Amino acid sequence: MEFQSYEANNTNITSTTVLYVGSLYKLSQEDSSWIVSNAFIIFTMQTGFGMLESGCVSLKNEVNIMMKNVVDIVLGGLTYWLFGFGVSFGREEPTNSFIGVGGYLIDPEIDDELFGPISAAFLFQLSFATTSTTIVSGAMAERCNFKAYCLFSLLNTIVYCMPAGWVWGDHGFLRNMGAVDIAGSGTVHLVGGVSALACALMLGPRLGRYDEGIDALPLGCPVNALMGLFVLWWGWLAFNSGSTYGVSGMRWKYAARAAVSTMLASMGGGLVGLGFSLANPKRIDILSQINGILGSLVAVTGGCFLYKAWESILIGMIGGFMTCFTMPLLDKMGVDDPVGASATHGISGFWGVMAIGFFADDPHPLNTTSGRKGLFKGGGWYLLGVQLLTGVCLSVWSFTSSVILLWIIDKIIPIRMDEHEELLGADLVEHRIHHSQIGVSRALSALHPLPSKKQSLNGVPSIGTNPGHDSFILKVIRVKRLNNGLKIFHRRPLIRMENTFEEKLQIPTINSSNSDSLKLAWTN
Amino acid sequence: MEFQSYEANNTNITSTTVLYVGSLYKLSQEDSSWIVSNAFIIFTMQTGFGMLESGCVSLKNEVNIMMKNVVDIVLGGLTYWLFGFGVSFGREEPTNSFIGVGGYLIDPEIDDELFGPISAAFLFQLSFATTSTTIVSGAMAERCNFKAYCLFSLLNTIVYCMPAGWVWGDHGFLRNMGAVDIAGSGTVHLVGGVSALACALMLGPRLGRYDEGIDALPLGCPVNALMGLFVLWWGWLAFNSGSTYGVSGMRWKYAARAAVSTMLASMGGGLVGLGFSLANPKRIDILSQINGILGSLVAVTGGCFLYKAWESILIGMIGGFMTCFTMPLLDKMGVDDPVGASATHGISGFWGVMAIGFFADDPHPLNTTSGRKGLFKGGGWYLLGVQLLTGVCLSVWSFTSSVILLWIIDKIIPIRMDEHEELLGADLVEHRIHHSQIGVSRALSALHPLPSKKQSLNGVPSIGTNPGHDSFILKVIRVKRLNNGLKIFHRRPLIRMENTFEEKLQIPTINSSNSDSLKLAWTN
Amino acid sequence: MEFQSYEANNTNITSTTVLYVGSLYKLSQEDSSWIVSNAFIIFTMQTGFGMLESGCVSLKNEVNIMMKNVVDIVLGGLTYWLFGFGVSFGREEPTNSFIGVGGYLIDPEIDDELFGPISAAFLFQLSFATTSTTIVSGAMAERCNFKAYCLFSLLNTIVYCMPAGWVWGDHGFLRNMGAVDIAGSGTVHLVGGVSALACALMLGPRLGRYDEGIDALPLGCPVNALMGLFVLWWGWLAFNSGSTYGVSGMRWKYAARAAVSTMLASMGGGLVGLGFSLANPKRIDILSQINGILGSLVAVTGGCFLYKAWESILIGMIGGFMTCFTMPLLDKMGVDDPVGASATHGISGFWGVMAIGFFADDPHPLNTTSGRKGLFKGGGWYLLGVQLLTGVCLSVWSFTSSVILLWIIDKIIPIRMDEHEELLGADLVEHRIHHSQIGVSRALSALHPLPSKKQSLNGVPSIGTNPGHDSFILKVIRVKRLNNGLKIFHRRPLIRMENTFEEKLQIPTINSSNSDSLKLAWTN
Repeated sequence: MEFQSYEANNTNITSTTVLYVGSLYKLSQEDSSWIVSNAFIIFTMQTGFGMLESGCVSLKNEVNIMMKNVVDIVLGGLTYWLFGFGVSFGREEPTNSFIGVGGYLIDPEIDDELFGPISAAFLFQLSFATTSTTIVSGAMAERCNFKAYCLFSLLNTIVYCMPAGWVWGDHGFLRNMGAVDIAGSGTVHLVGGVSALACALMLGPRLGRYDEGIDALPLGCPVNALMGLFVLWWGWLAFNSGSTYGVSGMRWKYAARAAVSTMLASMGGGLVGLGFSLANPKRIDILSQINGILGSLVAVTGGCFLYKAWESILIGMIGGFMTCFTMPLLDKMGVDDPVGASATHGISGFWGVMAIGFFADDPHPLNTTSGRKGLFKGGGWYLLGVQLLTGVCLSVWSFTSSVILLWIIDKIIPIRMDEHEELLGADLVEHRIHHSQIGVSRALSALHPLPSKKQSLNGVPSIGTNPGHDSFILKVIRVKRLNNGLKIFHRRPLIRMENTFEEKLQIPTINSSNSDSLKLAWTN
Repeated sequence: MEFQSYEANNTNITSTTVLYVGSLYKLSQEDSSWIVSNAFIIFTMQTGFGMLESGCVSLKNEVNIMMKNVVDIVLGGLTYWLFGFGVSFGREEPTNSFIGVGGYLIDPEIDDELFGPISAAFLFQLSFATTSTTIVSGAMAERCNFKAYCLFSLLNTIVYCMPAGWVWGDHGFLRNMGAVDIAGSGTVHLVGGVSALACALMLGPRLGRYDEGIDALPLGCPVNALMGLFVLWWGWLAFNSGSTYGVSGMRWKYAARAAVSTMLASMGGGLVGLGFSLANPKRIDILSQINGILGSLVAVTGGCFLYKAWESILIGMIGGFMTCFTMPLLDKMGVDDPVGASATHGISGFWGVMAIGFFADDPHPLNTTSGRKGLFKGGGWYLLGVQLLTGVCLSVWSFTSSVILLWIIDKIIPIRMDEHEELLGADLVEHRIHHSQIGVSRALSALHPLPSKKQSLNGVPSIGTNPGHDSFILKVIRVKRLNNGLKIFHRRPLIRMENTFEEKLQIPTINSSNSDSLKLAWTN
Repeated sequence: MEFQSYEANNTNITSTTVLYVGSLYKLSQEDSSWIVSNAFIIFTMQTGFGMLESGCVSLKNEVNIMMKNVVDIVLGGLTYWLFGFGVSFGREEPTNSFIGVGGYLIDPEIDDELFGPISAAFLFQLSFATTSTTIVSGAMAERCNFKAYCLFSLLNTIVYCMPAGWVWGDHGFLRNMGAVDIAGSGTVHLVGGVSALACALMLGPRLGRYDEGIDALPLGCPVNALMGLFVLWWGWLAFNSGSTYGVSGMRWKYAARAAVSTMLASMGGGLVGLGFSLANPKRIDILSQINGILGSLVAVTGGCFLYKAWESILIGMIGGFMTCFTMPLLDKMGVDDPVGASATHGISGFWGVMAIGFFADDPHPLNTTSGRKGLFKGGGWYLLGVQLLTGVCLSVWSFTSSVILLWIIDKIIPIRMDEHEELLGADLVEHRIHHSQIGVSRALSALHPLPSKKQSLNGVPSIGTNPGHDSFILKVIRVKRLNNGLKIFHRRPLIRMENTFEEKLQIPTINSSNSDSLKLAWTN
């Protein structure tokens, strides 16, 4: 994020008092409106991730993964308020290069001069934190226990907030070395993607995943997956453009450039994804197209307003290529990541961090790069080195911390679902949602003697049906068979309808003198 | 809404002439941009309500309820323009404490000094009005006649615009007593929720609703319901944050705070909803999770920028608790509200109005609370009393007016669907949309001799199929059986394709000398 | 778009240097923030078009049409960057009245004084270009070859960027004659709609389309179609309101008016669509309701801030009427446009262009209409004449160029799918997505001996299923039948679960001494 140390000595900022206490809180009215509006849009990315992940898994888990995305905000958001924001941006003693202290349970008084900027800053950071933590959910889909996931959601904030502080906090050692990561190719995506990889490894592949080779399993609802892509795509514009952290001074110009770069990169990545799709001898692959675009967006995120147009396209193409190339590779290595989060966010996120070291302009008068430039812009090797260090530190941290976290959680609640629960699907087992026509009923009967949950799952009605109506209609059918009118009792609406169902049905019984003709009418 | 009487005596408003005629129209360029942008987002809440409601009902009514949401904007919007805005905010004689007069068919001349602010104000109010009126549709789902609903949509504006004037209009008696309801816990949600309760009571429960106990019926499409939750969630940010009614002066700071409070409250409510879900012995309940979050959002709406962080969380938790606790209670009382709108918006809306009386800060220099504070902030009992009065007035008005309205409409068009139409589902009966695999065909055959509509419903093709192709393929199958080539006629595209289907199929007939091998090929 | 020649001589623009080089780049910080934010929202219209089109086609093509919408942005966006923007807005020699030159591969240096405005302008124009080109995809649904469509996507930019230059470019002959088309009733919708008509004619109707009369085929997923309507509806607010091209000066007032006009027009069109729906003797027609609203939005787009409130409603009603009236007419003429794009965007777009000639105000101090007024406002016939000329030029251009383009593409890759591919559906043939329960399997078996693609399509698993699990469960069933325990091998998760599936299953085999009771247990 671009809140480093831009000197507000230009005359454009006329209508506000610029605040100097902590670069995070240097926000004028226009800046605050900009980041607050963009935070609104960034939150919609949760919808995008939810729909994408839900569309990618098999139907018997589509609801469960959406619920996990809900829980990510509720629990992840709470812990970010409790300690995450403080760890990333706290400024009290004994804050050091590795961890911020203070700012927990942040709650500025309205008499505080900084109360507006603090609120806006927290909102913006919260939108980033929830986005980062939800990246992992896709990699854990279809086999992670819901309660264990809740625990993970609570604690996942730790994985994110530490490196965010290193790169964005005033105290951070990477920031102070000159690391650049504007909208978080590293802090958000690399961290999320590597954490996803760790989780996918810890959980192991889904049952029978590689029985038929490494081809991707069929998407449960490709339309929803593509809709998720679209929502993420537009959300990304706010994600990157909002990361100028305002519009005052020259920032509005870079905000516009960030949006253009984001679109151009996605076109580059989309082109590569389309190439992968069309090159596939078997099919025009949806997931390659989706992840090609997402991978390019991840790649351009870190230096979104530091690139020329053709560089954005190139960076996007490389990001898309690395994503599409790595996805099947991970499958070959037996790492089962149902939505490809490790490749999309991890591999391409690392590239996004490095790309800054190669291509970054110095966006004067902003101090984003501390006046440095990338290797290809004549800036020498320093920035590239720092970016490499950043990528390595973030990867090591997020892998290690995720493994430790999951290991601990597994001791409390086993993270992997019981195998028969996995076969029945989390929607049925956890939420009693019975999808019909996709083999759940067969699984139920095949696994019948196994002790699943206390309650029986056989009686769960199919999704979309109305059991009340069903029993009602069965009664009608029975009545027809008995050919003796219909006796039904149900609660009456307050307003009595003149011509009720029963009366209509009883009319023939009462009026007809010829029971045979009636019989005929019923059975017709 | 916060357009009361904020004194624009600070130096931040440099670029506009602040207008003093009517507090509603005191809008600078920045303020107008803020509320117009936020109105755009608030309109997306209609998408959220549509998806949530459509996902909650059984499949055979999922389209019908979406159509009702469309009609809400079309007809409700028209009447809001015709008279609703005038009743709420009119200032002409004989405007009194209970009703505004004038401002009907609002249409400012471009030479009018206020033409910009009036346009912006109307747009913002319109987005609120359509949101409020659509809350009711969920409670009427699956059994309300479509045409009667259209009539209700037209007139429902009355239920909303009167109390909105009481609380927000310059003339309103509640406003002049000091009632506070920033983004409408009362005027939007309590009114909508109580109206929903009235409608659910008037319509009576769905057929067979309580045959198997009070457990919720299965959701028709839980993924859509959860997507609706997400859309509403983010829309709510604009709803509350936009209700600072601008960003000039100190407003931008409170706008940021409103967004933070909204997120924090939703986390509190989400936690409670998750608790209810996990505590349910049978399942992790989707609807409790959804309505826990929505209930907390409703609760924080009224005083969205008056609370400290932990208070927002607490208010959200209480709102979520009241919602999740009341939902099954209403079912026990035989009130069938398919999406839980009465509990979510009504009960939690009342709590939201009261919470202001307990917790409100005085957000100086804004005049939102007229300098008053809530009970727990040392403001004494006055504000709490006014808020209680507001809650009672709004509840009584919306219940009574809804009952009268529906009673009148029922005299014109019966509001409840015929029972056999309800059993077949509104999608089939009203829209000829035939969902397969959910028992509609069985219902059709069971109810066969009943006079449903003029036209037959038996021939309606299943959703998602292509009847043109089906007949085409049946012809192919017939042709195969006859083993004598294929005669098909269909319209030609302008560009003749070189190698058509017929030719390919005819090749074996023409070239093959051995009819037996051909026969084999066909039957393979 | 309203970037003509507004004189920035008012004092409101305090915080920026207003730039005079090219009216397209006269953007202050506020203006840029406005159009950049609105561009974000306009891009969401792609989601709307995708969901609408995907919901309108039969299920066996629902994914394919979404993919085409993805490709529209990727390829259409790339060519817009490569040459489209330059053709519309280039200013170098030899730019003439018909075509702009220069500005290709646009990429402003950060030292360029105009670098911010150019970035913002390009982003905004890009959002318009991708919207226009995607209109066509709906008309080509269900029968257009995917690879041919990719080629079309690449080149379709030509169809859009030429007339956009005529009406909006500084060089454009229509602009210099005084043509008015604020947000593109003509340049976006008429062009898109007429192009859609040309494409529908070139492709010919879907197989068997008119076998059962001209009634619309069943929508594949009406809920998605309605969701698409909603997304488009709100996106349109940004589309029209953003086309003030800023908020500085008086623009913010007209931006607010544009949004109000847009909503009012949509209510008018929605009312007409509802009338058509209710008047239909067979059903309350979803597509009439949708296209009535969209048609009215198209109609109001061109003069969105030039109308009084009741005029907006009237223009919307006429637009909605023309759309709903023309849709079945086109079907009678054998033009098969699955989503009605020709009527909605073409016919209503033409009306939108003409409506300006009848109703336009002179929105002083903006120079939108060059001081002219519509016929009914006392402006005489001139503006009406120019608008008529605009409508005719745009129609002729887009029809001719689309036909030529498709004709050329058809020589390279046949644009129409093979007939057996069309019968199987593009989802299966192109993407190997097998929708169950909609007749695809029957089609597969009926068309079996035909040479479809290299690979067999019979083995493709049904959408939403998990083939890995299926084979796993089949093994369980087989094991049960053999009654000799269970031997399964699968990859282990890294963390060994204490109590695995196999062990549980093996317990009876090992411990039980009575094989009969075990047998019983298995078969239970």
